[in-house]
Amino acid sequence: MSDTAAGREARPVLAVDIGGTKMAAALVAPGGRVTGYGRIDTPSDPALDADGLWRTLEALLDKLVADAGAPALAGVGVGCGGPMTWPAAEVSPLNIPAWRGFPLRARLRAAYPGVPVRVHNDAICVVAGEHWRGAGRGRGNVLGMVVSTGVGGGLVLDGHLIDGASGNAGHIGHVVVDPEGPPCKCGGRGCLEAIARGPGLVAWAQEQGWRPGRRDVTGVDLAADARRGHPVAASAMRRAGRALGIAIASATHLCDLEVVAIGGGLSQAGALLFDPLEEALRRHARMAFARQVQVVPAALGQTSGLIGAAALVFAGDRYWNAD
Amino acid sequence: MSDTAAGREARPVLAVDIGGTKMAAALVAPGGRVTGYGRIDTPSDPALDADGLWRTLEALLDKLVADAGAPALAGVGVGCGGPMTWPAAEVSPLNIPAWRGFPLRARLRAAYPGVPVRVHNDAICVVAGEHWRGAGRGRGNVLGMVVSTGVGGGLVLDGHLIDGASGNAGHIGHVVVDPEGPPCKCGGRGCLEAIARGPGLVAWAQEQGWRPGRRDVTGVDLAADARRGHPVAASAMRRAGRALGIAIASATHLCDLEVVAIGGGLSQAGALLFDPLEEALRRHARMAFARQVQVVPAALGQTSGLIGAAALVFAGDRYWNAD
Repeated sequence: MSDTAAGREARPVLAVDIGGTKMAAALVAPGGRVTGYGRIDTPSDPALDADGLWRTLEALLDKLVADAGAPALAGVGVGCGGPMTWPAAEVSPLNIPAWRGFPLRARLRAAYPGVPVRVHNDAICVVAGEHWRGAGRGRGNVLGMVVSTGVGGGLVLDGHLIDGASGNAGHIGHVVVDPEGPPCKCGGRGCLEAIARGPGLVAWAQEQGWRPGRRDVTGVDLAADARRGHPVAASAMRRAGRALGIAIASATHLCDLEVVAIGGGLSQAGALLFDPLEEALRRHARMAFARQVQVVPAALGQTSGLIGAAALVFAGDRYWNAD
Repeated sequence: MSDTAAGREARPVLAVDIGGTKMAAALVAPGGRVTGYGRIDTPSDPALDADGLWRTLEALLDKLVADAGAPALAGVGVGCGGPMTWPAAEVSPLNIPAWRGFPLRARLRAAYPGVPVRVHNDAICVVAGEHWRGAGRGRGNVLGMVVSTGVGGGLVLDGHLIDGASGNAGHIGHVVVDPEGPPCKCGGRGCLEAIARGPGLVAWAQEQGWRPGRRDVTGVDLAADARRGHPVAASAMRRAGRALGIAIASATHLCDLEVVAIGGGLSQAGALLFDPLEEALRRHARMAFARQVQVVPAALGQTSGLIGAAALVFAGDRYWNAD
């Protein structure tokens, strides 16, 4: 590829999304279009060590770039499950035990010298993607959420991604919605995530008599049963929706939000989740400014994290506040 | 005064703080020092109309500037009780019935032509003051709170004042701390303010058998009785502290805060309020990043709102995001 200014402008970003279930990568054009895509299941072999997992990821990226004809890159943008140190991105994803303090950004910098390499929390990349090219486009104050095995999020306020003191802003999953509620994996009690995460809902529904008839069920199975009219499954979805609505009311009051974009597997439950969410939100958010907030499904679906990872590079003035 | 660059740099800001109880004004030097001060009780005569109240304020400002030798001003900065349209600042302070949609900024611009005139919510000015010259100085992520007749607040994140969609960011008083708790004046239920505002605490304590022996008692009287060992008064302060701790845990998780600076009359209750606050906060904020947050009394006391109003002009790059 030519190294003229026009050539450099057309270069894609190599975007990566690393979670406990899958590792996905894409080439993203400057406008946000995905021009190449690859994914693998995240290896769960307990014998695989940190370097073995890194080589697996590296092979995925090498193949994607090679299949696209080895274009020059504008940079590398990555969303990874937390926690991590930020911006150094020594990552310790909760659901990837092989990586504890793994120097992901340093490894990628060594592998892709001469271009920006930027790594942030995966939920942060979701809000960056939804703000850049999705449901929050053109709005200044957006909360992006991922409701799935956990409940994560990220904040764009006054038009800029908010990092907070240590890159951890956006943890909507640990807004307290019931101070005497169930214990949370974070060590606290009554967090949104403790109630609305998929496994939490499944456990609650099973306690209440839901018998799905097989093992390894998830929140998505629960939502499917709720849609088929199972009363306990429907109650579980109402419970999740109510907790989400309370947390969103609190976040709206604190941050004066315009749009909340919700992605993740559970968000596909539709009205079963969004109706009780709206009911609780409207009960608690009554002041004129708070009534303006709109809660919508994430517009970019499974690619929002990848497109947001690309935005860390393409629109660094709004989404990247570090070196 | 000379109009050289040095002369312009030394000009003070005329800072104004308008609330339902008092109206205060000060001349603030570029470093943040108060060089002149005046205050009056906010007139409560129901016969006084909007223009009459404006003339009262104008007289206070005229006298302050004249007494100081009529220096040239760097600008006018104002904190006013909400709600208001922002940045136009047509103000309708809850506790000043004479002003409903009163064009405060336009009137001040006409009175002080040729210099910037900037008006924001009074609690926003408190966080600007505490971040510029008080307890949050040098930190990037600060929540300022005022705990008094109401519970207000303002946010500085990533080093900048956050306005949100309509200038209403920072409403920590309406973070939900008990979804089935008492009704709130905002129309919601279980808001921090519904529990921890002074009149709410007084009402709760009286229901529980507190008999202060006179009328018109406030949260400050309640705190005094708690200090003297009255068990119901002490319980009321614990109730407030716990609600504050839960709301601060939620805000810390969402915004990755470093410092929470608490001012207002009730904050003077000291350990009676701050001990149960810390206990609830530490129970709910357990992740490493959230444990870092420090909750401290506001450092600038009664002048933080005035100093913050001056910061809207002197440090507009950080605290003023409008025209």
